[in-house]
Amino acid sequence: MKLYEQYAAEIAALIANGDLAPGTRLPSVREARARRGVSASTVFQSYQMLERAGLVQARPQSGFYVAATATPGANDLAVAEPGTEASEVTVSELVFAVLGAARSGDVAPLGSAFPGPDLFPLGQLAKAAARGLRQLTPQAIVDHLAPGNPRLREQIALRYRIDGIRLQADEIVITNGALEGLNAALQVVTQPGDTVAIESPAFYAALQAIERLKLKALEIRTDPEHGVDLDALADALARQRIAACWLMPTFQNPLGSLMPDARKRTLVALLARHGVPLIEDDVYAELYFGSQRPRPAKAYDETGLVLHCSSFSKCLAPGYRVGWIAAGREAQRLQRLVLMTTMAASVPAQTAVLNYLEEGSYDRHLRRLRATLATRMNAAIQTIEAAFPHGTRVTRPRGGYLLWLALPAGLDAMRLHEAALRERIGIAPGHIFSPDHRFSDCLRVNCGHAADEVLPALRQLGRLAHQLQRSSA
Amino acid sequence: MKLYEQYAAEIAALIANGDLAPGTRLPSVREARARRGVSASTVFQSYQMLERAGLVQARPQSGFYVAATATPGANDLAVAEPGTEASEVTVSELVFAVLGAARSGDVAPLGSAFPGPDLFPLGQLAKAAARGLRQLTPQAIVDHLAPGNPRLREQIALRYRIDGIRLQADEIVITNGALEGLNAALQVVTQPGDTVAIESPAFYAALQAIERLKLKALEIRTDPEHGVDLDALADALARQRIAACWLMPTFQNPLGSLMPDARKRTLVALLARHGVPLIEDDVYAELYFGSQRPRPAKAYDETGLVLHCSSFSKCLAPGYRVGWIAAGREAQRLQRLVLMTTMAASVPAQTAVLNYLEEGSYDRHLRRLRATLATRMNAAIQTIEAAFPHGTRVTRPRGGYLLWLALPAGLDAMRLHEAALRERIGIAPGHIFSPDHRFSDCLRVNCGHAADEVLPALRQLGRLAHQLQRSSA
Repeated sequence: MKLYEQYAAEIAALIANGDLAPGTRLPSVREARARRGVSASTVFQSYQMLERAGLVQARPQSGFYVAATATPGANDLAVAEPGTEASEVTVSELVFAVLGAARSGDVAPLGSAFPGPDLFPLGQLAKAAARGLRQLTPQAIVDHLAPGNPRLREQIALRYRIDGIRLQADEIVITNGALEGLNAALQVVTQPGDTVAIESPAFYAALQAIERLKLKALEIRTDPEHGVDLDALADALARQRIAACWLMPTFQNPLGSLMPDARKRTLVALLARHGVPLIEDDVYAELYFGSQRPRPAKAYDETGLVLHCSSFSKCLAPGYRVGWIAAGREAQRLQRLVLMTTMAASVPAQTAVLNYLEEGSYDRHLRRLRATLATRMNAAIQTIEAAFPHGTRVTRPRGGYLLWLALPAGLDAMRLHEAALRERIGIAPGHIFSPDHRFSDCLRVNCGHAADEVLPALRQLGRLAHQLQRSSA
Repeated sequence: MKLYEQYAAEIAALIANGDLAPGTRLPSVREARARRGVSASTVFQSYQMLERAGLVQARPQSGFYVAATATPGANDLAVAEPGTEASEVTVSELVFAVLGAARSGDVAPLGSAFPGPDLFPLGQLAKAAARGLRQLTPQAIVDHLAPGNPRLREQIALRYRIDGIRLQADEIVITNGALEGLNAALQVVTQPGDTVAIESPAFYAALQAIERLKLKALEIRTDPEHGVDLDALADALARQRIAACWLMPTFQNPLGSLMPDARKRTLVALLARHGVPLIEDDVYAELYFGSQRPRPAKAYDETGLVLHCSSFSKCLAPGYRVGWIAAGREAQRLQRLVLMTTMAASVPAQTAVLNYLEEGSYDRHLRRLRATLATRMNAAIQTIEAAFPHGTRVTRPRGGYLLWLALPAGLDAMRLHEAALRERIGIAPGHIFSPDHRFSDCLRVNCGHAADEVLPALRQLGRLAHQLQRSSA
C-alpha cells in the first residue's frame, strides 16, 4: 500500500467509526503535512482518493469535508415488499390535496420537490435572457420549435460528451421541463390498459401519468442504496407483458438511491432482451456529492430503447421549464408529439439558458450548488437524528436534496402531515408514492432550502412525531 | 333616413359596385364636409356606421379606408358537403410531411400558420423580460405554476372585461400557447372512441389532436362567411352522441369565417341544451379589421360548458408560448392536467408578457398590427385575383391573415404544393384540413408576412397554377 493509500485508509476508518462526522473539515494539506510529516502531494492524493470514493468532498476555496453520504446508514431502511400484480392507480387526487395544501407562501416547503430558489443564478439568467433576446432575429423564432434551438441542443449534447456519454444533438428534443418529456415518452410507448414497471416507492408524477393515461402500475422492490431490484424486475418481465419501465436510476425520488454503473448496464441489457423501453428520469444527476456525474442508463443504450429525460429545473433555472428528452428510436414521434401539443419550450427560456451556458460559468455554479446541497443535507440528517423519535430511520443519498424517513412502527405520516400543516410546515407523506398508499409510515422531506427555514421546521416535525407517538401509545 | 345614414348608404353602394376598391382612402372629414356641405359630425357618423358594418376601417393618424372585406365575394365559394358519419382520422403524417417540408428558412412561408415575425414588438418584449426578471424574487417562481402568474391572469381578464366580456381571472389557467389548452381541453372532455364535431374544413391541429386521442371526427358544413352551419350541427346532435365540439367561431382557420354574435349565442344555447362542451379556439380574435373585437362564444356561456382558449402567439409574442384557457366547469381539471404535464408556462415568458401588458402600449401595437394585416391581406387578394387562373375563388375574411383559395375544377392543390416547394414556396394544401383529404382543390395561404415576400410568391404560385391547368387540360 502506498503512503497516500495508507493515510486515506486511516481517515476512511475514522469516518466509518463515526469519529469524523459528516460535515467535518479535514485538516488542510499544510496542517496534515506538518502533523504527519508527509509530503503535500501525498496528503492531496489521499484526499482525492477519498473524494473518488465519495467519502469526502472538496469545497472550492475551503478544503475537504467529510461527505453527508460518508456513513451510509440507509441500508437498514426496511424495503417494503410490493405485490406482484399490476394495479390501477388512483393517487392523483391525494397528491393534489396533499401538495396543494402546502403551496402557500407561508408554509415551510419541506413537502415541495423544488430546491430553494436562492440557490440559482437568477440575476445572471435574467441578463442572459436580455442579451439573447436582444440579439435574436425575428426569423430565428421558428428555429425554437421542437426539436428546439439547435445551439442549445448542441450545448446539452456537449455536456454529455464531456462526461463520456454518447448522445447526439440530433437525438435531443427540447421540452417544457423534464415532466413534458416524461409524460410524452409514456404516451408514445404505451396504450391504455398496458402495464408500466415503476420503483417502489415511486415518484408521484409517474403514478399520476400512469393514472391519467389509464395504465397499470407494477411496483418493483427498490433498495434505498442501489435502486430497483434487478432480480425482481427480471422475474416480472418473465412473468408478464410490461409495456415500459419508468425509473430514476440516479438519486431516485423519493429514496435517493443510486444504481451503480454495473447495475445500470445490466438493467439496460435486461430490458433490451425483452424489447421493453426504459423511460429514464435523470433530473438529479448533476446534483452528485461524489467526484463525478453518475452515468445515466442511456450511456449503455445500444438499441435506442432508452428514453432519457432531464432538465435545467433542478440545477440551474427553476421555473424556466427547459428540459430535454433523448428518445432513441422514438425521437421522431416525440418531436411530433411536442409539436402537436406545446410546439416548443418558450423562446425567452431557451434563449436565456443557451446564453447562460455559452458564457461558461455553469460548472462553477454547479460546484457551488452541489457543495451547498451536501451541507444542507448533512445538517438536515443530523437534525432529524436529534429531533425525531428513537427508531426513525433516514436515507443518506449521495446527491440531490430529498430525504426519505421511516417513522417508528405505528406512526402514520398522513397524521404527521396534517399536524405539520397546522403549524405551517409542508411534508410529502409516503402515501403518495405508491398506488396502494402503502408507505404510510414514511415521508419525504426536502432539505434543499435555506438552513434557517429547514432546520427549525425539522425540529418542529420531530416534536410533532414525538407527540404522535405519545398519543398513539 | 338621417343625413348620415343617407351618406353612408351612398358610399356603401359605391363600394358594392366596385367603384370604391378595397384599400381606397375615403375623403377626409374636412374634404367631405367641404364637398357635400354637411357637418363634420355627419361625415364622422357615416364613417363610423360604415366601420361598424365592416365596410371601411379607420387607420390611426391616417383616415378611413375601404376594408379588404368590404366586397364579400366569399359567399360563392363552394361549401363542400361533408358526410354525416363520424370518421377516424389519419391526417397527422400528411400534415407533418407537408408543413415540415416547408419549414426551411429559404422557403417562402405561405404555408405557415404564423404571421410575419417582423410585426411584433420583440425589442420591447425583450426589455420587458429583462425588467421583469430583474425584479422577480426567487420566491415568486412558485407563483407561476399553473394556474399561472396571478397578475398576468388579472391582466388577461381585464382585457375581456373592457370588451364587455364576462370572464373571471380565477377561471383562467395560463398554458404553453393556446395549443396546450386546446389539447388539454379535448383530453379532459373526451374518452377514446368518442365523436368530436369540427368545422369543414377544420384546422389541422384539431384533426391531429382527434387522431392522437383516438377519437372520431364529425365534420359539420361550414360557411366561409358565417361559420359552422347550426342546422347541420343541430341535426347531428339530435342524431348521435357527440362528446365535444372544437370550433373557431371567430376568423376560422382556414376559412376566415366569422360567426355573427346572434349565431354564437345560438350555438352556445344549442350545445348547452345537449350538455355538450364547446372547445373554442379564439386565437385570431384580436386581429379584427372592423371596429371592435368580435365577441367569443364564451361571452354567452351560462353553464360553464365553453372551454375558451386563446394566446399571445398570433398578436404579440410569437414563440413565447403564453396562452390561456378559461375552462368553465372544467377549470380545476384543466389546471391539474397542466400541472401534471408541463407544470406552467415558463417564468421568463410569463414575466415578459405581464410586464409588457402593464406598460400599456399593447392596444397601440394591436391597432398598428390590424392595419398592417388588413393591408397585407388586401394586397394579397388583389394579387391572387390577377395572377391565378380564371375561376379561382378566394375568401375575404374580416380579420386574421389566412386566405382560403378554391382552384378551378380539376386542379389538385397537392400537385401545386409539390411544384411550389420546388421553387421554395410553401403552401398548405386543402388535403390537410379534412379527415378524408377532401379539399383537394383548395389551399390556404398565409398573407401575414411582408409584401415583398408574399406577393412575388403569390404571382409565382399563380403561374404554377396556370401551368398545372394547361398540363391537365
